[in-house]
Amino acid sequence: MSKVAVVMGSTSDLPVMQEAIEVLQTFGIETFVDIVSAHRTPDKLAEFGKTAHLSGISVIIAGAGGAAHLPGMLAAYSPLPVIGVPVKSSNSIDGWDSVLSILQMPAGVPVATVALNGARNAGILAAQILASHDPALLKKIVAFKTGLQEKVSQGARETREKYRS
Amino acid sequence: MSKVAVVMGSTSDLPVMQEAIEVLQTFGIETFVDIVSAHRTPDKLAEFGKTAHLSGISVIIAGAGGAAHLPGMLAAYSPLPVIGVPVKSSNSIDGWDSVLSILQMPAGVPVATVALNGARNAGILAAQILASHDPALLKKIVAFKTGLQEKVSQGARETREKYRS
Amino acid sequence: MSKVAVVMGSTSDLPVMQEAIEVLQTFGIETFVDIVSAHRTPDKLAEFGKTAHLSGISVIIAGAGGAAHLPGMLAAYSPLPVIGVPVKSSNSIDGWDSVLSILQMPAGVPVATVALNGARNAGILAAQILASHDPALLKKIVAFKTGLQEKVSQGARETREKYRS
Amino acid sequence: MSKVAVVMGSTSDLPVMQEAIEVLQTFGIETFVDIVSAHRTPDKLAEFGKTAHLSGISVIIAGAGGAAHLPGMLAAYSPLPVIGVPVKSSNSIDGWDSVLSILQMPAGVPVATVALNGARNAGILAAQILASHDPALLKKIVAFKTGLQEKVSQGARETREKYRS
Amino acid sequence: MSKVAVVMGSTSDLPVMQEAIEVLQTFGIETFVDIVSAHRTPDKLAEFGKTAHLSGISVIIAGAGGAAHLPGMLAAYSPLPVIGVPVKSSNSIDGWDSVLSILQMPAGVPVATVALNGARNAGILAAQILASHDPALLKKIVAFKTGLQEKVSQGARETREKYRS
Amino acid sequence: MSKVAVVMGSTSDLPVMQEAIEVLQTFGIETFVDIVSAHRTPDKLAEFGKTAHLSGISVIIAGAGGAAHLPGMLAAYSPLPVIGVPVKSSNSIDGWDSVLSILQMPAGVPVATVALNGARNAGILAAQILASHDPALLKKIVAFKTGLQEKVSQGARETREKYRS
Amino acid sequence: MSKVAVVMGSTSDLPVMQEAIEVLQTFGIETFVDIVSAHRTPDKLAEFGKTAHLSGISVIIAGAGGAAHLPGMLAAYSPLPVIGVPVKSSNSIDGWDSVLSILQMPAGVPVATVALNGARNAGILAAQILASHDPALLKKIVAFKTGLQEKVSQGARETREKYRS
Amino acid sequence: MSKVAVVMGSTSDLPVMQEAIEVLQTFGIETFVDIVSAHRTPDKLAEFGKTAHLSGISVIIAGAGGAAHLPGMLAAYSPLPVIGVPVKSSNSIDGWDSVLSILQMPAGVPVATVALNGARNAGILAAQILASHDPALLKKIVAFKTGLQEKVSQGARETREKYRS
Repeated sequence: MSKVAVVMGSTSDLPVMQEAIEVLQTFGIETFVDIVSAHRTPDKLAEFGKTAHLSGISVIIAGAGGAAHLPGMLAAYSPLPVIGVPVKSSNSIDGWDSVLSILQMPAGVPVATVALNGARNAGILAAQILASHDPALLKKIVAFKTGLQEKVSQGARETREKYRS
Repeated sequence: MSKVAVVMGSTSDLPVMQEAIEVLQTFGIETFVDIVSAHRTPDKLAEFGKTAHLSGISVIIAGAGGAAHLPGMLAAYSPLPVIGVPVKSSNSIDGWDSVLSILQMPAGVPVATVALNGARNAGILAAQILASHDPALLKKIVAFKTGLQEKVSQGARETREKYRS
Repeated sequence: MSKVAVVMGSTSDLPVMQEAIEVLQTFGIETFVDIVSAHRTPDKLAEFGKTAHLSGISVIIAGAGGAAHLPGMLAAYSPLPVIGVPVKSSNSIDGWDSVLSILQMPAGVPVATVALNGARNAGILAAQILASHDPALLKKIVAFKTGLQEKVSQGARETREKYRS
Repeated sequence: MSKVAVVMGSTSDLPVMQEAIEVLQTFGIETFVDIVSAHRTPDKLAEFGKTAHLSGISVIIAGAGGAAHLPGMLAAYSPLPVIGVPVKSSNSIDGWDSVLSILQMPAGVPVATVALNGARNAGILAAQILASHDPALLKKIVAFKTGLQEKVSQGARETREKYRS
Repeated sequence: MSKVAVVMGSTSDLPVMQEAIEVLQTFGIETFVDIVSAHRTPDKLAEFGKTAHLSGISVIIAGAGGAAHLPGMLAAYSPLPVIGVPVKSSNSIDGWDSVLSILQMPAGVPVATVALNGARNAGILAAQILASHDPALLKKIVAFKTGLQEKVSQGARETREKYRS
Repeated sequence: MSKVAVVMGSTSDLPVMQEAIEVLQTFGIETFVDIVSAHRTPDKLAEFGKTAHLSGISVIIAGAGGAAHLPGMLAAYSPLPVIGVPVKSSNSIDGWDSVLSILQMPAGVPVATVALNGARNAGILAAQILASHDPALLKKIVAFKTGLQEKVSQGARETREKYRS
Repeated sequence: MSKVAVVMGSTSDLPVMQEAIEVLQTFGIETFVDIVSAHRTPDKLAEFGKTAHLSGISVIIAGAGGAAHLPGMLAAYSPLPVIGVPVKSSNSIDGWDSVLSILQMPAGVPVATVALNGARNAGILAAQILASHDPALLKKIVAFKTGLQEKVSQGARETREKYRS
Repeated sequence: MSKVAVVMGSTSDLPVMQEAIEVLQTFGIETFVDIVSAHRTPDKLAEFGKTAHLSGISVIIAGAGGAAHLPGMLAAYSPLPVIGVPVKSSNSIDGWDSVLSILQMPAGVPVATVALNGARNAGILAAQILASHDPALLKKIVAFKTGLQEKVSQGARETREKYRS
């Protein structure tokens, strides 16, 4: 069965990246989680990037902050779709550095970038990618979207009540 | 067979979005191209968003400029992975409006954003998504990456020659 | 009598949008309040946008954060004037995403944008729009402006006293 | 009958502001056009701001560039709705100065801001404001929106043809 | 004797503007302090701007936040040098709005802008302007600069001690 | 008689700074023009900064681009008011570097900053500073402001004519 | 033996700059620490800049915030490599002023800029510069890099354990 | 003898990077020039990064644009000082992406960043690094700085002449 890898540059990214892992589990998707630092463990990055598609992984989610090179370098090594999560780390310049370092990849080597700290969306996107060939999973995605709608509808009802003139 | 839809908000986005279409053709992937404006044809957007996954489309690529709502609204309607291409249109504020309108989606509804005007990468990413379940296509992706490498290597040889002291 | 609709993408926008509701009540203007999420309840958005002008609503105020598509999509569906309130939500990039997603609408489909978190001004602007055909309301606006002036004048007097050399 | 005033800080803003005048004429709305500089003719600004609502004007459109104070100062003087058009003037810092000077008004004194150089949208918004009490004009707005849609649809047809595989 | 006026848009600017008043008192310069709101008391602004140079004032310091029009409008009315202090107010977009609204004045009407929240420097600059024709005050400025130097030198000595290897 | 020094970091700044010189000549103010580079001739900068007030100069105008240190370093050395002109030089990042390097001076050492490329305003501001003690020059400033007004009024008349319905 | 100077504009920069000092001590490199303010002690800056290379110093690390002129002015005076540390000081505009004032030096006078508050990296860079001619120090750098890798590896092991499905 | 490597991500960076090569030749420093793409030839990058210090190279200059990962990844692999040149490439967002991707490196792995397109300064900085242990080269640097000064002085003389009143 297809697996999604969730990797990040540092354990300090875990509180943000945790949301990707959780949403994948909700969809019943097997995950592989690891710390891979582009700047401190570049050989591990290379090894992981070259072999991920050979070890049952179908999508890579990579989160990093500041001059965030992990998603782009994994995209350099791997033929798999790589989803990048810009993390707003402590000395970041308001997150702009993470966003631009991940988003602005040169032609030839894409990274599918999600919002700043948007790990939950990275997980959903990975599920959508797998679902594009898995009718059962696609049904779960459709149900998930209906669920989003219902949660809003309840808040909406309460709000309309509260402000009914 | 899986199809990729390439839609954009205006015919003026075609010169940019053309690169997505071309790279998909290179990979032998069937494409469906249309103009869908979030602000001028919202009903068409809704219709397309709701039915794309029922008509053989597996991935949607959507390009738009300025307050670019097309990719995000397609992601609202469709369970498919949506790839957003921020287009630097004429009255854009240096492209920041397109980038942020597409990238910063709320939790629950991801858009896979690529670089400003990065339509070529959107096409490659769509191919990678299809390839995650298609070994033959995956081979093409691997070969494509090798091709990138070779083009660089030739330029590198010439440059080293030129500057050999 | 004319009504103003105040809608927002999420109940988490209520603390900001509350100020629009309050100022409208001060002017004695009937309000309709609802939660309408562009990305989670797009069909409700479409329905509301298409019918608002048929159900006694004259002006729509819409608040949203991040990649804020609600005001622009309502403007796509409705012939009414739409006032957009960029909300500085939690994972926003300093509010720039909300501001640009609402402000930078393409030619043909305007959104009347107010300041970041400027819900109070959205309410006043809606009142001014209604007042452009309602002499009694126009008088209230004029009185409101005189009131602003008087509050400043009192602070000014105290400040001059305090620093009189 | 209601009139819309279109004023701007300098004759150099005319090429941009011209689009507001044209769209108003399309809707058959009477316009009053003048040059009013906040920084060079402040007394005229004050006089105009104080009397506009007494001389048959219902909406003010004001365009200015750089440290653009005209829209906000008119909003300070007039009880009418003021629509601000940020103009990207020659020594502007990419338009950010015009946008922020017009958008970020303090609570109490709104300016309805449109996109950078968005004069056409300012005209449409003014028409929508007048239409909120004028059923015949509202019909024209609805027809205008249908027109937008049709123009897109034609481009869409041609594009689909061109790329039909 | 020459007086310096220190005016600001709101009493909420006082904590910042207080530093200008204090440094002027240190130099023994008479100050006039008032609240003048461009958007809420525009007539008072006009009156003050037109008459300041006739009532013994030689320099105007004006502080304001957000879409900060006070310094520029005073410069429109007054022939005196106007020093603008961008104040980082609560709903400001990180202070950029205040800075650009004050700094980017059109040719013909300068505002001498100081740093964000730089009221202390506004006071020193006003003193320097008066000193350009007042040898006794110039001596005080020179002494003030020597004082700055001495305070640094003491911290420097302690730091060198602390880190002597 | 009082002199104004106009210095700049490089001869390439002359096309911009020329406007300061011209407006000063219009006001009949004696000017001293020189090239002083903070980074290439720091000793000359120090010498000039320390002695300017002893050689008949009353105000210093300093223009520079990029990491623009000239105005701030002159302010470090001289007790005179220093007016800084951020110049948008060729490799500048849209002028932001020049603006922030000049504007954001620390408490104690002000630079009176004008708009990007705003050399003309720097000249006017210098004249206003001298005029604060020179009634004849103050009259010229008042006349200058009336002149600004008249030029606008003429353009206004022509515009009103052109668009008279 | 070679020494590294660590200077900064104010004692308030010490908490940030401390990290440079510590990492240099780890490498056994002699440091000289001082407070040198570009704007308050410019003569000391000049003296230090002119003589550093004559007193056993091989590399200068300079930290400053806001309109940060210290690193650039030291680079103007000294032939030594100057490493600049942009410090995010209290009234900084999110650190952009410090970064651009240090980074955007004109051709001819480089400053080796590190990340916002990146003092630790400044220290490491200084060590690398000394190591380029000191095989023993180079070995320490290599060991330091291995150490970075090991710390990551341990966190990685624990993370893999925790999420093993 | 020590060599400096000048590498860049693409032959399209050569027009910018050429200036580094030229200035190094002026100083008589041996250079090695190559194209190394982080995203298209990651294995070559790793190989080069790991071995540069073993093959006579003392300093690495690396230029790249957009999401510029080359300098940071070389710094990950090599113990040598790495100088990063942000290149303003065609689809860059005004250069901000290149600057932030290179500058904002995490603690532990510094890149010595120079100005946008500042290749000439990268070359000078490399020379300064070599000169920190090479008295003859240090003399050349001192002479180079004197040369800068002289070129300015000549322009200054001509400018003073031209504007002598």
